Amino acid sequence: MSLFEGVLSTPEMLSVFSERSLVDAMLRFEAALARSQARLGIIPESAAQSIAGSCKVELFDVAKMVRDGARGGSVAAPLLHGLKEAVGLFNADAMPFVHFGIGDQDLVDTAMALLTREAVALVEADLAQSVQALLRLAQRHAETPMLARTSTQPTSVTSFGLVCAAWAAPLARSRGRLAEAARRGLQVQLGGAGGTLDRMQGQGAALRRQLAEALGLRDPGVAWHTQRDEWLAIGCELGLMVGSLGMLAKDLLLLGQHEIGEVAEPAESGRGERLPRASMVALAAAQRAPQRVAALLAAMPQAHPGALGGWQAELAEWPQLLLSAHGSVRALAGALPGLHVDAARMRSNIHRLRSGLPRGAAAEGFDPALAETAGVLALAQVLALQSPPDLSDDTR
Amino acid sequence: MSLFEGVLSTPEMLSVFSERSLVDAMLRFEAALARSQARLGIIPESAAQSIAGSCKVELFDVAKMVRDGARGGSVAAPLLHGLKEAVGLFNADAMPFVHFGIGDQDLVDTAMALLTREAVALVEADLAQSVQALLRLAQRHAETPMLARTSTQPTSVTSFGLVCAAWAAPLARSRGRLAEAARRGLQVQLGGAGGTLDRMQGQGAALRRQLAEALGLRDPGVAWHTQRDEWLAIGCELGLMVGSLGMLAKDLLLLGQHEIGEVAEPAESGRGERLPRASMVALAAAQRAPQRVAALLAAMPQAHPGALGGWQAELAEWPQLLLSAHGSVRALAGALPGLHVDAARMRSNIHRLRSGLPRGAAAEGFDPALAETAGVLALAQVLALQSPPDLSDDTR
Amino acid sequence: MSLFEGVLSTPEMLSVFSERSLVDAMLRFEAALARSQARLGIIPESAAQSIAGSCKVELFDVAKMVRDGARGGSVAAPLLHGLKEAVGLFNADAMPFVHFGIGDQDLVDTAMALLTREAVALVEADLAQSVQALLRLAQRHAETPMLARTSTQPTSVTSFGLVCAAWAAPLARSRGRLAEAARRGLQVQLGGAGGTLDRMQGQGAALRRQLAEALGLRDPGVAWHTQRDEWLAIGCELGLMVGSLGMLAKDLLLLGQHEIGEVAEPAESGRGERLPRASMVALAAAQRAPQRVAALLAAMPQAHPGALGGWQAELAEWPQLLLSAHGSVRALAGALPGLHVDAARMRSNIHRLRSGLPRGAAAEGFDPALAETAGVLALAQVLALQSPPDLSDDTR
Amino acid sequence: MSLFEGVLSTPEMLSVFSERSLVDAMLRFEAALARSQARLGIIPESAAQSIAGSCKVELFDVAKMVRDGARGGSVAAPLLHGLKEAVGLFNADAMPFVHFGIGDQDLVDTAMALLTREAVALVEADLAQSVQALLRLAQRHAETPMLARTSTQPTSVTSFGLVCAAWAAPLARSRGRLAEAARRGLQVQLGGAGGTLDRMQGQGAALRRQLAEALGLRDPGVAWHTQRDEWLAIGCELGLMVGSLGMLAKDLLLLGQHEIGEVAEPAESGRGERLPRASMVALAAAQRAPQRVAALLAAMPQAHPGALGGWQAELAEWPQLLLSAHGSVRALAGALPGLHVDAARMRSNIHRLRSGLPRGAAAEGFDPALAETAGVLALAQVLALQSPPDLSDDTR
Repeated sequence: MSLFEGVLSTPEMLSVFSERSLVDAMLRFEAALARSQARLGIIPESAAQSIAGSCKVELFDVAKMVRDGARGGSVAAPLLHGLKEAVGLFNADAMPFVHFGIGDQDLVDTAMALLTREAVALVEADLAQSVQALLRLAQRHAETPMLARTSTQPTSVTSFGLVCAAWAAPLARSRGRLAEAARRGLQVQLGGAGGTLDRMQGQGAALRRQLAEALGLRDPGVAWHTQRDEWLAIGCELGLMVGSLGMLAKDLLLLGQHEIGEVAEPAESGRGERLPRASMVALAAAQRAPQRVAALLAAMPQAHPGALGGWQAELAEWPQLLLSAHGSVRALAGALPGLHVDAARMRSNIHRLRSGLPRGAAAEGFDPALAETAGVLALAQVLALQSPPDLSDDTR
Repeated sequence: MSLFEGVLSTPEMLSVFSERSLVDAMLRFEAALARSQARLGIIPESAAQSIAGSCKVELFDVAKMVRDGARGGSVAAPLLHGLKEAVGLFNADAMPFVHFGIGDQDLVDTAMALLTREAVALVEADLAQSVQALLRLAQRHAETPMLARTSTQPTSVTSFGLVCAAWAAPLARSRGRLAEAARRGLQVQLGGAGGTLDRMQGQGAALRRQLAEALGLRDPGVAWHTQRDEWLAIGCELGLMVGSLGMLAKDLLLLGQHEIGEVAEPAESGRGERLPRASMVALAAAQRAPQRVAALLAAMPQAHPGALGGWQAELAEWPQLLLSAHGSVRALAGALPGLHVDAARMRSNIHRLRSGLPRGAAAEGFDPALAETAGVLALAQVLALQSPPDLSDDTR
Repeated sequence: MSLFEGVLSTPEMLSVFSERSLVDAMLRFEAALARSQARLGIIPESAAQSIAGSCKVELFDVAKMVRDGARGGSVAAPLLHGLKEAVGLFNADAMPFVHFGIGDQDLVDTAMALLTREAVALVEADLAQSVQALLRLAQRHAETPMLARTSTQPTSVTSFGLVCAAWAAPLARSRGRLAEAARRGLQVQLGGAGGTLDRMQGQGAALRRQLAEALGLRDPGVAWHTQRDEWLAIGCELGLMVGSLGMLAKDLLLLGQHEIGEVAEPAESGRGERLPRASMVALAAAQRAPQRVAALLAAMPQAHPGALGGWQAELAEWPQLLLSAHGSVRALAGALPGLHVDAARMRSNIHRLRSGLPRGAAAEGFDPALAETAGVLALAQVLALQSPPDLSDDTR
Repeated sequence: MSLFEGVLSTPEMLSVFSERSLVDAMLRFEAALARSQARLGIIPESAAQSIAGSCKVELFDVAKMVRDGARGGSVAAPLLHGLKEAVGLFNADAMPFVHFGIGDQDLVDTAMALLTREAVALVEADLAQSVQALLRLAQRHAETPMLARTSTQPTSVTSFGLVCAAWAAPLARSRGRLAEAARRGLQVQLGGAGGTLDRMQGQGAALRRQLAEALGLRDPGVAWHTQRDEWLAIGCELGLMVGSLGMLAKDLLLLGQHEIGEVAEPAESGRGERLPRASMVALAAAQRAPQRVAALLAAMPQAHPGALGGWQAELAEWPQLLLSAHGSVRALAGALPGLHVDAARMRSNIHRLRSGLPRGAAAEGFDPALAETAGVLALAQVLALQSPPDLSDDTR
């Protein structure tokens, strides 16, 4: 399986969602939980020390944990079993305080939020780089004349810079919206079996606040076991981003056809091949991500406490959306700075078209001078996009 | 087709996206365009008057327009043909100024934005009503004890009020996010064939600004022909909302099973039937909306100027997402205020469970007194949700 | 809504799934049911005559039925209410025998099977015509040399005839598989509320057999209320067909680009426009149909007797899949016979490419003589595809 | 990632689609290709021996191959690079004959067909076991009375045996249809870059025939690079199967609710837990598989030779569909033989319902004697399903 995912994703993102990373994140949760509970007097300080001391991923046999999880239908159970055993070796009294008063979903959802924070940071870095590369191209080619095409047919003359600005703008907006969605959706999960943290001696709210702070996640004020909207809003943003990148990639692909030849991806270093790898990866992601988003949305009604399977489906789809998303943005972030732009070919394509048209039509509709108008728009766009997106401001 | 859509949507939303409404919206666009162009001196004032005077839906044979559109593959072409003819009857000189310098996508996208503004208002009204009904229930039943169930099995005791608060919270957030998405995404579309409005005598930007103001839409500063992200973000929000409503409906359905019997939808007036219609409609929507969102996202790369079919697919999927979304929220907005809540049955379900358990387990895990803890949380949630959502504020 | 569906579907298919057609099909079911029940002595002959006599669509106010259905959440209830009223006017004794011992799903599913039989016949006719047109092109252009392109780059020389044969083959197979799926899946639905036809005096099996024969549907031997596999297999076949048509359309679109110019759709009669309407319709369908198939499959687990909403979602998605499917195949069936094939341009595109290559590479990889090899394959394919597909035979 | 896939799939299927298995399958293809080419005199016998001798997975560094594949965007390129190197070590003359005249898609598609043959066999074995377990239950409980429920409400009395027969029937049909789809769709891919095998000295057809025989795959007679219908028909069948299994699982879940308690999954050996793991896995699969099918269908138009990304998306989605499908059927095949059926509870649920009804209603609609009628139907179904499905026969 990973052979294909490897081609379509990135080593960094595969590592973020590796089995080991998930186990590590779950252990970070348990350690922080125990420490916070001790600070509030919910569990003994000595128990917390024993627990936190055992929460080290290198102490555990991740492969065995995976096998046991598969057999039992839960990734949390074997970890908790192993952690209790480890804690018991040194301090049997601490065993009952492992994962005290907390549900499995608290553990797994919070661990996923921790991993997703890293994942979003990876996406954001490449998104930023893509936008910068496009804005540089937009500036450099602000007035480079190029055929505007609609429905596969030339319709007018624009500039390549304006095309680049139109590629950059949705990605710049994705940065803003993704940051906003992450700010809201990366939340600690803490509710216990019934969602009321009833075993925390009335300090449930304080515990969640402390834990959120310790882990660097938001405190939602309640458990969001069945309230997936803010979490999935991050997924929707990724879906929109992958769609915008797909649009860009499709344009690259069409403009790079042998018969058009206006742009080309840089060749991979040390390879003479012609495969436009970045466009391929971005287009494959654009093919797959909508289905991941659909699966996530479809699982929402399954999230209610009386159902089963929906939460597990969400957990399995989530990393795959991020794998695709990062594959797409990383591939383009890598290709765009070295994009071959054949401005001469753009001009000659215009002239070849004009030479086949009746004189009047050519002069009017396909005048290379139209690139100047486009250039003004392109530069205005560059200026607007270079300033950091301010979401509370309505004027752009 | 509409037999089933009629059951699953609402007459109001069917009317918003009726053929007549779309034609009317397209005519409003053309009228406002002509007036704005005249004001800027782009077309003669007399032409604008003739054009605006003919932009009346009752002058057109909508059914014929639909037939012609089907034959030619475009909804814009027959409207423009008809409008030019109508204008020509009175003022032949004005004919060339109909739809002057503008593309078909400008017309259709802006018309869709106008209709969607109405559609979102319908959704918002019922969303507000649903939230209010749920907050009232949350308050009334803040301490009504009820079994908390996970994976179909009772796990603890909560209160029905807290359950209602957890139903209300994602809907309240949907209100905020949907309003925000609509504020950004309901934009005028204006670019002309090449996206540069090159035939507007350098006044393209001013024209778009004036037109946006006249139509009450946002001015995006550029054409968004291929930049669908802000538009589709509205669709994603609707998908999230339908998912949250589906979660609520699934809970209602499960709690309403004969053997559980804790809640029941109000019977339709004058009917003795038992069909829980609102849950059915909301669950059908939750089944369908994710696929609409996927179709919209999948069409994004098709939106590039060199492709074909993706824009048309988007146009056809869009109303259907709104039909489902409004069906869902309207059905629940109608049912929730009259929801039958059988608090006695909730209590007897707890007692029956306890009577089958060993004494200790019953006392600890399924103590009805746990409803008080839940009640405190429920009331805190109600308070937080009653204040209008402030998106710029991070503390809830 | 229908404005866009009208563009992307056909008047014939819109008519098959119109409100009136569905009501008519439901009445045909009730009439045949009553007659079969009388023949088996389950209900009185006089009652059957009264019922069958009232089962005429022109006696009913379809619009009102739609409104009532929307209010109550069921399309069957208002029809049965109206039918009983109509029967009662002339023969009050017959009223209790309307829809005797039968469930609403029996009525609606069977009516949908009747409509789908017509729908599949429409699809099949245009599919046959598309295959014929492609085989003619394959024969005529068996040896017409053309660039083979992979990943947007020329890779070799093939013949246009072989390309046409590769377009035809999946469509020919779709004909065979669709016929097979329809033969299995177009079944009468009859089970009563509990699926056992327990009110039929032990003659349930005989009744279903008679009814199946009367309506020209298959007798499944049991009720298939929750067994949707054979029904949805028809939907999967339509999904595959739309995908194959989409592949064809995408090729047409790419080959028709101004810079390539090897094929072009015939212009709509009396129009000078360049919009490749057939490709657009087929590509929009290929964008939408996968999501319809997903929605149908996702509704399967909802079909169990304890759930709600899934069946209704299936009912609403089903016509939309057929609308898209017929739109696609009809559009291409219309365009393919008149396809403009520019064999000279195909040749000159090869020569222009060769002129830019080093001599050896050109001679070897892009030799127009390769079209002869392709021609042999093309003609062999034509021969194989012209013989009717025999599904039980493994050798082609 | 595999942490969740591990829970939702099976070790066997993860192994079928492991990186090593794919590399091994690709090497089997190259070995068989070289041998067949030598037999037909297309390449020298000595070259074939060298090539076949190097086609051993243990000679290769799979992990490095994966990393290189990721960098270059292709899983075939590093394998071919490595194979040529390995061959060259012993017989430099054989190097040019590695992968002679063949395209990368030939290699990868055929390797996927080889793996899928194994995958389908795994699915089929568990499908057969599930059907057998259900038929045994249907027989044993042919007359065990049980409430029939519709839309969450009791509607009548049926027998548990009839319910089991209705679970078994779609699965039995899936066996037949899946076998048929696999027979057609598991085909060798061989066409070379342009699809014409033009470098095979006129022996392309013979080569494909020999290779098909050597690998135990079907000979399609032509390359199916862009004709994905028969391949994806296997995927559609899997989608239908997962849907039918999901229906079964949802029923199990609802019947297993604490308040209904009529069936329960066997506890995992050595665990006292209550989590109905099999239902969970099957429901998660039913949530995810429809989106995989949609992704596969959506990639069809991308399969045309001029596009990019669609094929790669298909390759990545394919194993994941099989992982879900096998997870689902294996989980239920494991749980069904040991299903706890509480016939006494089924009876007491009927009696409790009757005791709350007016005497007449109870006697008529909810008479436990109705289970006898259901029993007759159940046994007839068992008999029909025990005979092997004969697809050419229309009578069941």
